Amino acid sequence: MNTNDGYIGIFDSGIGGLTVAKSVIDIMPGENIVYFGDTAHVPYGTRSKEQITEYVIEDVKFLSRFDIKAVVIACNTADSIAREKVEKLFPYPFFGVVEPAARKAANITKNGIIGVIATDATVNSGAYEKAIHSVDESLTVISKACPLLVPLVENNRFRRNDRVIETVLREYLEPLKEKNIDTLVLGCTHYPLLSDVIADIMPGVNIISSSVAAAHELKKGLEQNGLLGSSGQGRREYFVSDNPDYFKSTAHTFLGDSLGGTVKHISEV
Amino acid sequence: MNTNDGYIGIFDSGIGGLTVAKSVIDIMPGENIVYFGDTAHVPYGTRSKEQITEYVIEDVKFLSRFDIKAVVIACNTADSIAREKVEKLFPYPFFGVVEPAARKAANITKNGIIGVIATDATVNSGAYEKAIHSVDESLTVISKACPLLVPLVENNRFRRNDRVIETVLREYLEPLKEKNIDTLVLGCTHYPLLSDVIADIMPGVNIISSSVAAAHELKKGLEQNGLLGSSGQGRREYFVSDNPDYFKSTAHTFLGDSLGGTVKHISEV
Repeated sequence: MNTNDGYIGIFDSGIGGLTVAKSVIDIMPGENIVYFGDTAHVPYGTRSKEQITEYVIEDVKFLSRFDIKAVVIACNTADSIAREKVEKLFPYPFFGVVEPAARKAANITKNGIIGVIATDATVNSGAYEKAIHSVDESLTVISKACPLLVPLVENNRFRRNDRVIETVLREYLEPLKEKNIDTLVLGCTHYPLLSDVIADIMPGVNIISSSVAAAHELKKGLEQNGLLGSSGQGRREYFVSDNPDYFKSTAHTFLGDSLGGTVKHISEV
Repeated sequence: MNTNDGYIGIFDSGIGGLTVAKSVIDIMPGENIVYFGDTAHVPYGTRSKEQITEYVIEDVKFLSRFDIKAVVIACNTADSIAREKVEKLFPYPFFGVVEPAARKAANITKNGIIGVIATDATVNSGAYEKAIHSVDESLTVISKACPLLVPLVENNRFRRNDRVIETVLREYLEPLKEKNIDTLVLGCTHYPLLSDVIADIMPGVNIISSSVAAAHELKKGLEQNGLLGSSGQGRREYFVSDNPDYFKSTAHTFLGDSLGGTVKHISEV
């Protein structure tokens, strides 16, 4: 088998990483994709570094059962906390979400004040500050941990006119508004689902999806390494560590038919 | 060692079961207690039956490293889903939270209309309907799944004047209010922390804490089986499966000094 026909392995704690998978499918429909959502352990972002690292190693171990040509850490928490560790342990080229989003934000801001919303673990890691400052040290980065957003999205509460998500988001975004940010990084792959509500609350602010940015950098990386797959329609397989039923219904809600593959429990490999 | 000096093992997915531990300590201060919060896997209530059962078996396995005289399933989800399984697998007398709360509600209601708020998994199991109807078939039970309450409580959002918890609770309780319930079962051990906010929204309604009811039935059960411990001050040990720091700070917030013991990671037994 030609290496280029190998799978792109994509993983996240739950459904969030599907926003990355969708972006990858949109711009590289010919790639074979295997997705793993660690729904038995979601959410990651409120857990300890040690625990997150342990789960992330298991995630990559699971993906390594396939013929993998590249791994996408489609979870900002995992990318912030455990990237170095899995790069040491596994032989794959790894692609993340933090650096692509940080670079895009650094390049697009006009007033030099960038907001980042993310999980507790991502914010505490300082990964976004570091990545943005490696582009331009003079930029101001204001980070806000939003621990309730993943549970809300995972519970299907991400739409306009949902009073709960609107109340929570207004509270989280208020301090960023006060600091006059002109660019906001959605530093968690669950957050692109909240784009509509966030755009309503933050009119005129550039909203950067780490998922879209990651897919574009992945494409560039595959090209540079001669790893691009064939054109046409790629294979897609989805696995979860808990019962697949809930994942299926929620995934369909926001990915629609672009999922294009079956969802199985990890025991069904 | 006299059996009566054995430990009462208490477990939950996270901090919720501490409301049971607190009630047990209040009425039986002489008992030795070992508490286990499975914080590496919290929340349980939105996961599948199979996954919950797997975690609950591991929880009891962990407790079985101690000299256990009784186990309290201090988690309504675990009690509803996995009680039968662990009773088959382990030799301990098990005490739950669902039946005590159901009996208390059935006895206290005047108009015969009882509301139950609980996790998805508990509501879907039908455990409360079954337990309440085994006391009196004519009672009306209206259950409402409240999947966001555990993440909110675990994130320290359970106090009066917190707009988020108030908004979420108003939404969840509205349909129960409309049905004119006169009694409300807090069918999750995390929910007693929400008692103040719930009482504000549901004035005049009897609020039954499954945690308090469980502690009283435990005492009765221990008496009947000759398993009551000595008087005086019991030993207390707390273990969690993720990093203990967060658990310590949150536990202290609502248990104050009555915790009276160290919190360790499960690897430190």
